Amino acid sequence: MPSEQKRAPIIILDHPQMGENIGAAARAMLNCGLTDLRLVAPRDGWPNERADAMSSGALGKMPPVQVFDTLAGAIADCHYVYATTARLRDMVKPVFTPDGAARDIAERQTTDQQTALLFGAERSGLSNDDVALSHAIINIPLNPAFSSLNLGQAVLLVCYAYQNIIDDTADRTLPTGDSVPASHDDLLHMMDRLEAQLDHKGFFRSPDMKPSIVRNLRNTLSRAEMTKQEIRTFHGVISVLSGNKDGADDA
Amino acid sequence: MPSEQKRAPIIILDHPQMGENIGAAARAMLNCGLTDLRLVAPRDGWPNERADAMSSGALGKMPPVQVFDTLAGAIADCHYVYATTARLRDMVKPVFTPDGAARDIAERQTTDQQTALLFGAERSGLSNDDVALSHAIINIPLNPAFSSLNLGQAVLLVCYAYQNIIDDTADRTLPTGDSVPASHDDLLHMMDRLEAQLDHKGFFRSPDMKPSIVRNLRNTLSRAEMTKQEIRTFHGVISVLSGNKDGADDA
Repeated sequence: MPSEQKRAPIIILDHPQMGENIGAAARAMLNCGLTDLRLVAPRDGWPNERADAMSSGALGKMPPVQVFDTLAGAIADCHYVYATTARLRDMVKPVFTPDGAARDIAERQTTDQQTALLFGAERSGLSNDDVALSHAIINIPLNPAFSSLNLGQAVLLVCYAYQNIIDDTADRTLPTGDSVPASHDDLLHMMDRLEAQLDHKGFFRSPDMKPSIVRNLRNTLSRAEMTKQEIRTFHGVISVLSGNKDGADDA
Repeated sequence: MPSEQKRAPIIILDHPQMGENIGAAARAMLNCGLTDLRLVAPRDGWPNERADAMSSGALGKMPPVQVFDTLAGAIADCHYVYATTARLRDMVKPVFTPDGAARDIAERQTTDQQTALLFGAERSGLSNDDVALSHAIINIPLNPAFSSLNLGQAVLLVCYAYQNIIDDTADRTLPTGDSVPASHDDLLHMMDRLEAQLDHKGFFRSPDMKPSIVRNLRNTLSRAEMTKQEIRTFHGVISVLSGNKDGADDA
């Protein structure tokens, strides 16, 4: 049975060398709402002052980092482990993009599986034995001529893919703040008024061309997705430019 | 008419302070295949040794960085500018996620529009006037309790969203290396042999249960998506465990 709380992926850094990179990884994790960090045999021990400084406070806001002697120990309670690696190995193992892995994690959460995202040491990456202990590979598709990422950046991209899958922010929104979107009636009334003023001022020299010019104006203004407040401002602009009265009265 | 080559987005850093961050941004850009970098009034001038060092060679592989006095100058030849900002302003302006912006850029490429991705100074970000000069906002949805990214990380996430949209790597693949996927016939033959050996050894104690146990074994083994080579290895395993002969002969 799935628990009520989804199990978020654990981040595991295998033999990390520089504290700065552990700190950057922690910061990237917390940016993406992830808080379970495990270290396998960190070169400079743990805790690490440089990691604290580089995490921008993230390590202080997360549960204590867990330290293990071996990768096998670090993944013992995990159900599915993704090894992030820049090199594709000669192993028959599923290879995910970060997005693909994120969707796979979300699917495993429906059966309450504990997943883990594994990252290798800065210079050498993961050994083939480490990769063989994992269920799948994550390979980040980058510019093949310049694909080297530092550890913190790799953790950021993989964690963000997960955050992006669980986040429900719309791809595009148009927040209207204190105003509200103009109704079609608001827009039509303003366009009618603009066209009447333009007619009055002799803008439409050729009667033949008037319909298409009007359509163009309407297409332009409807594309702007105006708010009620912006419609009022445009009424003022029409009034002032046409010399009828000052904009403030009309707006 | 669209040109044959798609116009990739330009990255613009407005009033960047630290050379290290310019270098990290350049590295992140080139990781994602982007090479047009513009700087507006960099605090420490240009070129900058710290930027070169931090770019891990990226700056040397890109066209020369262009430097401008004003943002208006830097965006003069652009058709659509996305301002990346952590704070939502009280402005009525489309707000994209990085993915949404990437799709929007790809759409604008079909009409040969030059797009630009704008990033503010490290401490202060973009001014409201800078944002007003832009067509849209990019807001990266992160953990609201810990959303602060450094400049290089913000550039990486936004550039990677673009790289991710134009990249056609499958979400999940199973590379089989020197072998090829086993055919259904290969798998069925191996399962038939396994079941026959199990029957011979008395594994199926209850005839009633045999069909469901066989189904379970078949489900397990078919889920493994074995290669021809792996099927051969399993034939060897069956032979050796059943004591018929040594595995090498059979594999």
